[in-house]
Amino acid sequence: MKAMVLHERGRAGVALREMPAPDCPPGWARVRMVAASVNRVDLYMRDSGAGITHDLPLIMGVDGVGEVIDAPGQPHLAPGDKVILYPYEFCGHCRACLAGDQPLCHSARILGEHRHGTFAEEVALPARALVKLAPEADMERAAVLGVAYLTAWRMVFGKAPVGPGSVVMIQGAGGGVSYAAVQLARMAGARVIATTSGADKLAHFRARGIEVIDYRSEDVPKTVLRLTGGEGADLVVDNVGEATWGASLRSVARGGHLVTCGATTGAHPSADIQRLFVRQISIHGSTMGSMDEFRRLIRAWEAGGFTPLIDRAFSLAEVPEAFAHLEDPARMGKILIRIS
Amino acid sequence: MKAMVLHERGRAGVALREMPAPDCPPGWARVRMVAASVNRVDLYMRDSGAGITHDLPLIMGVDGVGEVIDAPGQPHLAPGDKVILYPYEFCGHCRACLAGDQPLCHSARILGEHRHGTFAEEVALPARALVKLAPEADMERAAVLGVAYLTAWRMVFGKAPVGPGSVVMIQGAGGGVSYAAVQLARMAGARVIATTSGADKLAHFRARGIEVIDYRSEDVPKTVLRLTGGEGADLVVDNVGEATWGASLRSVARGGHLVTCGATTGAHPSADIQRLFVRQISIHGSTMGSMDEFRRLIRAWEAGGFTPLIDRAFSLAEVPEAFAHLEDPARMGKILIRIS
Amino acid sequence: MKAMVLHERGRAGVALREMPAPDCPPGWARVRMVAASVNRVDLYMRDSGAGITHDLPLIMGVDGVGEVIDAPGQPHLAPGDKVILYPYEFCGHCRACLAGDQPLCHSARILGEHRHGTFAEEVALPARALVKLAPEADMERAAVLGVAYLTAWRMVFGKAPVGPGSVVMIQGAGGGVSYAAVQLARMAGARVIATTSGADKLAHFRARGIEVIDYRSEDVPKTVLRLTGGEGADLVVDNVGEATWGASLRSVARGGHLVTCGATTGAHPSADIQRLFVRQISIHGSTMGSMDEFRRLIRAWEAGGFTPLIDRAFSLAEVPEAFAHLEDPARMGKILIRIS
Amino acid sequence: MKAMVLHERGRAGVALREMPAPDCPPGWARVRMVAASVNRVDLYMRDSGAGITHDLPLIMGVDGVGEVIDAPGQPHLAPGDKVILYPYEFCGHCRACLAGDQPLCHSARILGEHRHGTFAEEVALPARALVKLAPEADMERAAVLGVAYLTAWRMVFGKAPVGPGSVVMIQGAGGGVSYAAVQLARMAGARVIATTSGADKLAHFRARGIEVIDYRSEDVPKTVLRLTGGEGADLVVDNVGEATWGASLRSVARGGHLVTCGATTGAHPSADIQRLFVRQISIHGSTMGSMDEFRRLIRAWEAGGFTPLIDRAFSLAEVPEAFAHLEDPARMGKILIRIS
Ligand SMILES: [Zn+2]
Ligand SMILES: [Zn+2]
Ligand SMILES: [Zn+2]
Ligand SMILES: [Zn+2]
Repeated sequence: MKAMVLHERGRAGVALREMPAPDCPPGWARVRMVAASVNRVDLYMRDSGAGITHDLPLIMGVDGVGEVIDAPGQPHLAPGDKVILYPYEFCGHCRACLAGDQPLCHSARILGEHRHGTFAEEVALPARALVKLAPEADMERAAVLGVAYLTAWRMVFGKAPVGPGSVVMIQGAGGGVSYAAVQLARMAGARVIATTSGADKLAHFRARGIEVIDYRSEDVPKTVLRLTGGEGADLVVDNVGEATWGASLRSVARGGHLVTCGATTGAHPSADIQRLFVRQISIHGSTMGSMDEFRRLIRAWEAGGFTPLIDRAFSLAEVPEAFAHLEDPARMGKILIRIS
Repeated sequence: MKAMVLHERGRAGVALREMPAPDCPPGWARVRMVAASVNRVDLYMRDSGAGITHDLPLIMGVDGVGEVIDAPGQPHLAPGDKVILYPYEFCGHCRACLAGDQPLCHSARILGEHRHGTFAEEVALPARALVKLAPEADMERAAVLGVAYLTAWRMVFGKAPVGPGSVVMIQGAGGGVSYAAVQLARMAGARVIATTSGADKLAHFRARGIEVIDYRSEDVPKTVLRLTGGEGADLVVDNVGEATWGASLRSVARGGHLVTCGATTGAHPSADIQRLFVRQISIHGSTMGSMDEFRRLIRAWEAGGFTPLIDRAFSLAEVPEAFAHLEDPARMGKILIRIS
Repeated sequence: MKAMVLHERGRAGVALREMPAPDCPPGWARVRMVAASVNRVDLYMRDSGAGITHDLPLIMGVDGVGEVIDAPGQPHLAPGDKVILYPYEFCGHCRACLAGDQPLCHSARILGEHRHGTFAEEVALPARALVKLAPEADMERAAVLGVAYLTAWRMVFGKAPVGPGSVVMIQGAGGGVSYAAVQLARMAGARVIATTSGADKLAHFRARGIEVIDYRSEDVPKTVLRLTGGEGADLVVDNVGEATWGASLRSVARGGHLVTCGATTGAHPSADIQRLFVRQISIHGSTMGSMDEFRRLIRAWEAGGFTPLIDRAFSLAEVPEAFAHLEDPARMGKILIRIS
Repeated sequence: MKAMVLHERGRAGVALREMPAPDCPPGWARVRMVAASVNRVDLYMRDSGAGITHDLPLIMGVDGVGEVIDAPGQPHLAPGDKVILYPYEFCGHCRACLAGDQPLCHSARILGEHRHGTFAEEVALPARALVKLAPEADMERAAVLGVAYLTAWRMVFGKAPVGPGSVVMIQGAGGGVSYAAVQLARMAGARVIATTSGADKLAHFRARGIEVIDYRSEDVPKTVLRLTGGEGADLVVDNVGEATWGASLRSVARGGHLVTCGATTGAHPSADIQRLFVRQISIHGSTMGSMDEFRRLIRAWEAGGFTPLIDRAFSLAEVPEAFAHLEDPARMGKILIRIS
């Protein structure tokens, strides 16, 4: 089968190759991939991969959707069923798995990181890591839910749940995960304040009724305080890291929360312990979401709660171009890979 | 001042009377009432009042809005400020008040029940029971928030919080509190299934994209199970009581919740203990909401999250007619009393 | 192998028989049973079994401990390892299992109810349903944890968690589950008020510093209110049912909780809806506990937090006598079955 | 009346003085002080006071107990009643107060910081800030609860509640707040691992069955991981700050929590964002506790759940010596000031 493979580190190491179709042990299912999405971690794998146990060549791609080819002994999965792939091959019997917290599985293998991924014509996974979609599901929208929207779901609902009456401030709101957080928080009835830059992005948010701060020209914490009558945000979502951490902490309301799933600009700002205890602030690290959160996300999407934003679509052979597009600061929302 | 007074039990005992203006002790504020709303408990006071310590004549009316006349020694309240009244005169120093759970205040006096209410040109209350509204607030919409929407808020968010991905089933969804629950659950991103009867009400909900069950012609639990793939509702809101309790219990998902704030058709159905423990169901009694919930509700309304439904408006002198209209089964949403 | 089998309904249908040793499919483990315990549900299976899909002859016994015989392909389980059996054979891939709520597994098969149980020399189970004990574990104490203590754990910690400063009232505190609830609530720092009858039981609790009410001679709600300065209990544990339900509801504090996992005296008392909402009471049905709760329970026991109370021990051949002893009202705590 | 006054910054500025008895406005109560305790913030006020609005001379002392002299118009408080003082004069009507979160009161004035404190023969406070003790209460033990034990209560129970089956690691466990955290976590059934140094302190904890790590000679995170089978602590309590922050973060289990109320060795360690999100760790800043937490603490103490540790007692005139003793690293637990 054809697959987009990382055969050596760096941009030149990503190429479409013929690869053997995957094995399908008992309890597993084979899926004919329909579409996948590009995630920031793909660039990390391409350029470094440090700290992640894996071998090259590696089929890339963390999330996606497809149709069941076969699922021997799994009566709830029939050939042709539309399915979405949970991005972790989790063990199902460790303490974390038995507690329903699959992202903390002691032996989780992430697709496209520790094992072959979704940029391929076929993928095999334990049947328990597949969630069935409705026959009428829009597969291209579904293809981008697995990482960005699931990660945003846990950030917005899993640590310090937001809802009507909450104020959520989201840093760098044009990115895939951050944009998803904006949509999920709005769907839940929260008031959202987004920071971004560039006239197009500012206009995009304003057109959707979202308050927006241009972080290049405005003082973010001062503006958040002004917009909230001096209180600050109940929840701040910050995946930017060092460049924004201090401003994020100064934007949180007393008794409020800051949640992070990434630190692209650096991971070592000051912890500012005194601010934390004087103002009773909580900080939460978050990664992915559980199978239960995945089902809730899919259910909310199927009910029409939100429509994933797709910036642009590429073919499987164009993954290198899709990676380049991911690094374009003007991009907004998710990048799709069409496979079949 | 003019006020709608209950001077003796029964329909004939409700009349517009001249009453002395209220005293305003230190720490209190006087409010010129603008509008109020009719609540089911008004009928209970008119017809029985049993179990509620009070004297006649009693000025009726539990909730409402107005403008501050004066608030001596309260720098945050100025004459002319628009305010909404919290329906409880709470003590502020008992264990429940100090824990922020004012509905459980050991010596709470409810307006229009234990003390004079809001169907009057002037009301005096402890300043801490007033919440300031924005200068541009729509006072007629605000007037109906105090009881129905606050009670619905605690039912929907205070016991087993709902949000995107949740399924909420609401019995008798045309009533003031139940209709409010429909709106609040929708605002929070939940999927709502309403039961009601009558072609107009069914059409009203369908037009707003809400799934609806005609309880006169359909089997409610079976339909809920069918609509939810056999799972049932995560939360059932039932203020009807004996007539619907059994159907409500059979509509709850395993591990789900039923919440109630009233029992107009009777309070003594079977507790069905076995169903509760086999299916791990929780039942929650709920009454009103706290000052903190009140502020969140108002904040969510001010942010445009929902628009209270007003069925019809009456003048202060027409309160008896408003009470009659409350008993009309075709009514939907809230009944407003215009005062000034 | 030898096993205590139910071959026909009723007391005469329980007999020690030779049965084939169980199969051990891939992913499963075989266990040489050391000890088990008797539970009230055993009597239900013996006398009725209605509503529980099963075939006779059925090996009885729901919980127990043993040593691994073999666990092919399970590197964390070695022959000779001491293990405790989780009483449910759960599927591991349904929605409830993936959410870590195994008691709600869509296809759970309970040992000794839907499938062969623990009153046998050998048992086979999916490896994920076994929890390893320390090599020095006291196997007889461990043998009684699986049903009674796990059920009590979820009742005391899983619905409305109790801790220091909480008041817990426990009805009929001599029973296996209720006695476990007394111990667990005490371990967590709560104040416990137990109801029981009989001079021996009253003395037993008093000697351990537990407040006790003789329900035959005292008015339970009045006494609870007197002991708590008029407030009532934050949590009431009631597995008795109709005979005590009303008294339990009148003993709950405003804003408090009642939890139940059984109704031996009847399941249909009045729901008393009005009391629920006026006093903001929550009622929780509870059954068993999850794998995560099971591990916490075992960890707390291994840390010395409590010592399971064993009333009396019988051999495998004496199970019929153990059943008779379970029905003796003077019994207190758990009944042990020694197997090897 | 006599009072220990800070009349100028520094050690020489603390002296016993004659001061006017306090006023007692309506709604307030006057208290004849019996005992108080010394807290680390006293040294901060003595030596700096920066960032805290106050005037000199200032009566020092943040917490304590006494007997009511008079409480006009407060029927629940009679002359002679034993009371404990909540250390905050809170407003009772701001958003935080109405939500029951008094430590976040918008205009809170802390005793001995923003207003006169407890090292005096008489103190006046709003009646709502006094909690009545039982007539038989041990006033010297009660005198040390107000700051150290209340702060520890919120750290242990208010952010990520611990109980049976939890592992709590407490840094620098000899200090007043940290020692209180050890006792409260133990009372709640948690397993406690304390770090400390010095043979006496190590022996003190071991004698009470508490696992202890000598941070001078052992690698703290490695030891915590070894003691917990590689998992780490569910909750780490760290009031030390920069000197221990990194070790604390490496001792937290995946999905676990770190809570802090102080940073005596510095407030600016690295936030280590990557560790937070990869391991899904939450960090909570905490300060004091609410009135509701105060009542629960007192109730748990009155029920015999723990006995506050008093290191040494001084008279009111000896406060300067008590301050010196507070700085002695060999000290353990609380320092008492006897007033009458
Ligand atoms: Zn796992
Ligand atoms: Zn009160
Ligand atoms: Zn299952
Ligand atoms: Zn305040």
